[in-house]
Amino acid sequence: MSKGLPKRSEDYSLWYNELVKKAGLAENSAVRGCMVIKPYGYAIWERMQRVLDDMFKATGHSNAYFPLFIPKSYLSREADHVEGFAKECAVVTHYRLKATEDGVTVDPDAKLEEELIVRPTSETIIWSTYKSWVQSYRDLPLLVNQWANVVRWEMRTRLFLRTAEFLWQEGHTAHATAEEAIAETKQMMEVYAEFAEKYIALPVVRGVKTPKERFAGALDTYCIEGLMQDGKALQAGTSHFLGQNFAKAFDVKFATKDGGLEYVWGTSWGVSTRLMGALVMAHSDDEGLVLPPKLAPIQVVIVPIYKGEEQLAQISEKVLKLKKELEAKGISVKYDNRDTERPGFKFAEWELKGVPVRVAIGNRDLENGTAEVARRDTKEKSTQQFDSLTDYIPALLDEIQENIYSKAFNFREEHTTKVDTYEEFKEVLETKGGFVLAHWDGTSETEERIKEETKATIRCIALESPEEDGVDMLTGKPSKQRVYFAKAY
Amino acid sequence: MSKGLPKRSEDYSLWYNELVKKAGLAENSAVRGCMVIKPYGYAIWERMQRVLDDMFKATGHSNAYFPLFIPKSYLSREADHVEGFAKECAVVTHYRLKATEDGVTVDPDAKLEEELIVRPTSETIIWSTYKSWVQSYRDLPLLVNQWANVVRWEMRTRLFLRTAEFLWQEGHTAHATAEEAIAETKQMMEVYAEFAEKYIALPVVRGVKTPKERFAGALDTYCIEGLMQDGKALQAGTSHFLGQNFAKAFDVKFATKDGGLEYVWGTSWGVSTRLMGALVMAHSDDEGLVLPPKLAPIQVVIVPIYKGEEQLAQISEKVLKLKKELEAKGISVKYDNRDTERPGFKFAEWELKGVPVRVAIGNRDLENGTAEVARRDTKEKSTQQFDSLTDYIPALLDEIQENIYSKAFNFREEHTTKVDTYEEFKEVLETKGGFVLAHWDGTSETEERIKEETKATIRCIALESPEEDGVDMLTGKPSKQRVYFAKAY
Repeated sequence: MSKGLPKRSEDYSLWYNELVKKAGLAENSAVRGCMVIKPYGYAIWERMQRVLDDMFKATGHSNAYFPLFIPKSYLSREADHVEGFAKECAVVTHYRLKATEDGVTVDPDAKLEEELIVRPTSETIIWSTYKSWVQSYRDLPLLVNQWANVVRWEMRTRLFLRTAEFLWQEGHTAHATAEEAIAETKQMMEVYAEFAEKYIALPVVRGVKTPKERFAGALDTYCIEGLMQDGKALQAGTSHFLGQNFAKAFDVKFATKDGGLEYVWGTSWGVSTRLMGALVMAHSDDEGLVLPPKLAPIQVVIVPIYKGEEQLAQISEKVLKLKKELEAKGISVKYDNRDTERPGFKFAEWELKGVPVRVAIGNRDLENGTAEVARRDTKEKSTQQFDSLTDYIPALLDEIQENIYSKAFNFREEHTTKVDTYEEFKEVLETKGGFVLAHWDGTSETEERIKEETKATIRCIALESPEEDGVDMLTGKPSKQRVYFAKAY
Repeated sequence: MSKGLPKRSEDYSLWYNELVKKAGLAENSAVRGCMVIKPYGYAIWERMQRVLDDMFKATGHSNAYFPLFIPKSYLSREADHVEGFAKECAVVTHYRLKATEDGVTVDPDAKLEEELIVRPTSETIIWSTYKSWVQSYRDLPLLVNQWANVVRWEMRTRLFLRTAEFLWQEGHTAHATAEEAIAETKQMMEVYAEFAEKYIALPVVRGVKTPKERFAGALDTYCIEGLMQDGKALQAGTSHFLGQNFAKAFDVKFATKDGGLEYVWGTSWGVSTRLMGALVMAHSDDEGLVLPPKLAPIQVVIVPIYKGEEQLAQISEKVLKLKKELEAKGISVKYDNRDTERPGFKFAEWELKGVPVRVAIGNRDLENGTAEVARRDTKEKSTQQFDSLTDYIPALLDEIQENIYSKAFNFREEHTTKVDTYEEFKEVLETKGGFVLAHWDGTSETEERIKEETKATIRCIALESPEEDGVDMLTGKPSKQRVYFAKAY
């Protein structure tokens, strides 16, 4: 097959978009800004969901489901929150269509008394519900997660990275004390970081956002930030400490152990189908996707190379036995014995789709008891004893998972630069990109000016950053810690 | 705990509603007609999803995701389809709010050029996508499923049974021939029937709808129909043969093997959170839920009865070992060692929540090496050797699953009545309810008249019904087969 993929070095953005479509992950739909997630893409998302869901349950959370619609007045209860989301809301105003001579139109008699907003996030509808769920300290902590679709009317959209509708999970928890809520916020950031590193094979910086970049309605936003191959950062997950903001907006109080009555403390945290974009952009190459084995829907593809039915039968017998043995070890295997395509076409197709390991077996292999094993990440090929594959392949998958992570980790290390002057800062951004570690005076004014002049934003104040005396590169004011700047998705 | 549940015999409808709320399954939200699915209810739904999803995959289907919104013009492409759904559509007309002196209002400058409908079902948006997915016979069959939320603006809603927003799965497949599409339609009806009977423990009638009751846009609608304890039927799943209707509406053609160009044949099929209502209404009693073990989030609850820390420690040691052994067998166990509630309260709570097996262990049990085992379905209690529980409980869970099914099956048998006259028909409907098997002349006029006069509808023409000469009870016209009438949800 002809892939017709642009090269990353020529047009990274076009490469990404074409790859997402050609590899069968997603495509644009007839509805502005809304994507269709295709079966192969959805299969990866399902794997992400399953792992994350298990991690949420292991940390004590239960799933629930809240309405898609939010009454307009609810969204307005928390001042920062509505300000943050009002500009990009899909608004339902009517509940009926009717047939007229000009075709089907909205029935003007079916106007809603109060408009409904398609949820851009669910804090308001959920906290309005929590009011009746929380009475006493015995009802706390309340640890709930929701898997759902949300809508934010973005004007410039890109498959997975920024779409009008996207899929996500949103955790919403309520606690008796600020300390517990902050611990929850940090714990979920750590869950996200672990997922990103162990499954997506994406090293991330754990940090906290500046006030300017906080979630609308939060007191603090923790985040994980990854670096893509074009040197731009991508926010891969956020976890918010909401303080008592939503408890106050929706009057959620609890009876304390010693008979008092207090507002509860809240958190919310989410990751979305944006992670699919991170997965693609962090590892893939000019030949197609490179999927980390732990999230690959097909981990091993086996292609027979044969002349005639008899050879195929001999190969199939061996392959089906191997397939069964690997599947018994929990490995997902596809035997691509289509007779409508040639091996070269199949190799290219599975390369495009990022299958971590490809096994080819032909007539000479039959004679020698061997098979050709090719790994997607390094493109290395080797000849292996066929009988050893049941052990060799699981080990190889682990090695690939680690290698993909190491490669991304090294890339990030090479693209993380400390600078002390604004000139250096601008030069690094223009030449190699990546994370730039610089001192900052802590003001939104300076942050805003740097963004206007360079398009770089403060991705986060990293949790692991050491204290270090310095001065802001722009204003010369004192600073105690470097922060992570980058251009970002 | 005081349950405060109404009795079924006094007010079945109120009993249902109160039970759904008190058992923690769902509640009404601030948004008209939209429910909140609470963690315990959602845990059951997740189990349903997992089993169904495995069944769909085992029959060759993949999941994908399509937009929440449907352009108004798309919905209108298939004439019957838009007529069926136009009256209950949530319509998005604007994409922005703005702050004014009177608060937050819809921004009149942000009106959509074309209104978007929140999907009531996804045939139109999916078939518009299939146009580019299907070119040749090699692309067929296309076997796709979607898990999603949908919105139908129902005026009279009831938790799970009829809500403005609900969760469901919708399969949408495309085939080269009518025969294949019909086979798929029947296969998915059979998958639903198997799920209903083996997991929900609900015996169902497999059948086909009359033209009047067909899905809007289908040539045939297959369905499964269950019977609730109040003698009303409940449609638990439908599978539609769409013919070439949507292929023609969206111009989806394929190149045949011999070089022709033809419209593809379609099916769609779905089950929803309505199954939760069926589950509750089919089995539960005046004390609370009765959950079939295969769908119960907690299959076994263990309650210690103790005086003092030392006794509790002795009991806990034994219980935790048992819990581990049962969990190793895939059984979900909760050890309710809360010190804030008394055993009687706990017993009542788990009874309300329908946990299939309750184990209580007290001081005398410690001495005797025994435990008290109570089953939720029959309320029988027995004393068992503690060491035997690891084997006894799994067998008991199987027995409970079977018993719940048998009970529902017997109920249905007792409430399925053959009648030959309209007088009998009306009398049966008024006195015992249930399914009434009667001859029908095959016309929509007669069907409509019976509905108006008795509120009973034809639930289906059962696939397993024998041919039998007879005459329509109302018109006296000839009939070849009895059909299933009932009042229905």
